[in-house]
Amino acid sequence: MGGLEIGSKISGSAPKTGVNRGVAVLDFILRIVAIIATLASAIAMGTTNESLPFFTQFIRFRAKYNDLPTFTFFVVANSIVSAYLVLSLALSIFHILKSGAQKSRVVLIFFDTAMLALLSAGASAAAAIVYLAHKGNTRTNWFAICQQFNSFCERISGSLIGSFGGMIVFILLILTSALTLSRR
Amino acid sequence: MGGLEIGSKISGSAPKTGVNRGVAVLDFILRIVAIIATLASAIAMGTTNESLPFFTQFIRFRAKYNDLPTFTFFVVANSIVSAYLVLSLALSIFHILKSGAQKSRVVLIFFDTAMLALLSAGASAAAAIVYLAHKGNTRTNWFAICQQFNSFCERISGSLIGSFGGMIVFILLILTSALTLSRR
Repeated sequence: MGGLEIGSKISGSAPKTGVNRGVAVLDFILRIVAIIATLASAIAMGTTNESLPFFTQFIRFRAKYNDLPTFTFFVVANSIVSAYLVLSLALSIFHILKSGAQKSRVVLIFFDTAMLALLSAGASAAAAIVYLAHKGNTRTNWFAICQQFNSFCERISGSLIGSFGGMIVFILLILTSALTLSRR
Repeated sequence: MGGLEIGSKISGSAPKTGVNRGVAVLDFILRIVAIIATLASAIAMGTTNESLPFFTQFIRFRAKYNDLPTFTFFVVANSIVSAYLVLSLALSIFHILKSGAQKSRVVLIFFDTAMLALLSAGASAAAAIVYLAHKGNTRTNWFAICQQFNSFCERISGSLIGSFGGMIVFILLILTSALTLSRR
């Protein structure tokens, strides 16, 4: 119906509108994928907790994600990004309905870019610490804690995947938005 | 001359072309700023090297940036980004001359986005390690090496500034490109 309406105004714009609508639907799907990826990352990291089976009278050997501030930042960054993505779904639906909208796309590109920076900051900082936990560093005498906390390390390593996947989705989102703006 | 040519085709497009040219010049200047920032970061980190004034017969206490793989990644990421920025100046000059170009702007947005992700990955990973060097972590028994290597720590902290500045410039670059695309 919308396609017919626009098609009657300018001849030949109907196929373009159709392509733009298809891209808008793709944008919506990509956002859902990114929500799942970043939320899974935040939850996987946020629930990481390992207690070792041996303990002394005074000390229990436990590893939690918030023993390391970087992992707290990782959880916060992923949560903020997934919350933003949920809100951005509204604009994404708006673009499916009104495929000619321009200003709102620029707003989306700006916030997508900022969120990409935040997400990659969180993911990379956590990755740097995960690397250190696995390998340690002999020059600075930082020991590889993964030798004791096996399942903790597997969990924190795995939770990075969602974040890095989310980064790729964000780059695709910005690319599709820019393509739609240029195709007008 | 170019403005006159376009202005003769469509009346009223001359002021728009002027604005676009102004934005293209701004884009060029921002890229120069980002080159300086990222190059300064790479050089500041890459030349970091501290020898402590005391040493035993067998061991000299030295700290170099490449003792920590994350800092090597930081230098590589900043070098790649500044090399990309130098190459992108060609497209930026092209946009000053031909302010109506569309496809090339989309290409720039895509690569700018990818480079923003790389730069923020390098900067954040390094920041996570710098934080650890300053504060250490009692739960994992990672000691704050900054207590011994003072000037080393000042240098690695300072070299982060250029990278984070570069990230802000990249977000502005993507925003101006998107605005120019939408204003057409």
